[in-house]
Amino acid sequence: MKSATEYLWFTTDQPRDYINITDRVAGVVVDSGIREGMVLVSAMHITAGVYVNDAESGIIRDIDEWADRIAPKGPDYHHHATGESNGDAHLKSLLIHHQVIVPITEGSLDLGPWQQIYYAEFDGRRRKRVVIKAMGE
Amino acid sequence: MKSATEYLWFTTDQPRDYINITDRVAGVVVDSGIREGMVLVSAMHITAGVYVNDAESGIIRDIDEWADRIAPKGPDYHHHATGESNGDAHLKSLLIHHQVIVPITEGSLDLGPWQQIYYAEFDGRRRKRVVIKAMGE
Amino acid sequence: MKSATEYLWFTTDQPRDYINITDRVAGVVVDSGIREGMVLVSAMHITAGVYVNDAESGIIRDIDEWADRIAPKGPDYHHHATGESNGDAHLKSLLIHHQVIVPITEGSLDLGPWQQIYYAEFDGRRRKRVVIKAMGE
Repeated sequence: MKSATEYLWFTTDQPRDYINITDRVAGVVVDSGIREGMVLVSAMHITAGVYVNDAESGIIRDIDEWADRIAPKGPDYHHHATGESNGDAHLKSLLIHHQVIVPITEGSLDLGPWQQIYYAEFDGRRRKRVVIKAMGE
Repeated sequence: MKSATEYLWFTTDQPRDYINITDRVAGVVVDSGIREGMVLVSAMHITAGVYVNDAESGIIRDIDEWADRIAPKGPDYHHHATGESNGDAHLKSLLIHHQVIVPITEGSLDLGPWQQIYYAEFDGRRRKRVVIKAMGE
Repeated sequence: MKSATEYLWFTTDQPRDYINITDRVAGVVVDSGIREGMVLVSAMHITAGVYVNDAESGIIRDIDEWADRIAPKGPDYHHHATGESNGDAHLKSLLIHHQVIVPITEGSLDLGPWQQIYYAEFDGRRRKRVVIKAMGE
């Protein structure tokens, strides 16, 4: 069995942002030499997500507006009693989910034609991290 | 380490549909000869989902109606500026999630008594695909 | 390749409850002797979830209230024609998702500073189960 672990760091300019990390995950897989296996891509923060969807700017805006409708910024979350103001970002992270697994087949990410891997920042402007862990043979 | 990869193809008659694929995933696991490991079941499209829940027709209708309430068909999504009309299907895919991992224990899917694996089609009537990837020993 | 499988049992006093199981998952990983790999933590019931988020009582209340707003208890779900009354718990399980994968790096759970693993019970007061499956080397 082979494995490989890498961390990506992000500091977004905006409070919310969506970053296509497909090529970076693909690079980890190629460097690992794994031909058959799986790669986990997982946010290491509780106010961020990782998802697979379309690299189309309209749908990215739709995802952003939808997440903010389902888990709106602002309301007086109980969490804010701690002094935080990012209760919505925790719920958005749960909604979008914080991780995906991509199969590795014949040495490459086994994604469908339109599938791209995104890092979703819901509480940005600080240094945050994603772990990439590949496993296989 | 052993691995096995298979693809399931679907062309549903309805725009939205829910198909129990538990037996097909179980078949891949048996054929793989893997005794201990994990199997990933993942939609390869951004307008479909894979989930684990009950094989009961009422709850399937509830899931369908709920997904359409939370991510409704119709509204003027930004994505529709591309000529597409399936913005809701992208959001439903994120809501339901597009993949599950099932543990393999003693050669079988290690599911609870009511857990069944479903393919959820949110934008059907065209040929779409699910990847099944088993890994273990 | 090494693997390890354990089951956690829960019988909550409340219909809904949120239980931090990070230490128990970490214990399985240590006992497995796996240095590099992944551990799957997955509810074996269709009315429960497993998620990664904050061990802060306010956000746990927020998550509970949010899940009940998005998938409310009570309404007349189709599923209730079977005699059940837990339709909302099925939808909450889909919303929160029923599983997470945590990377294992240098023999430990590779979690971010605030990431804790929770079992989310949405239809409690009966004996329910989570499977923990670690795999790696």
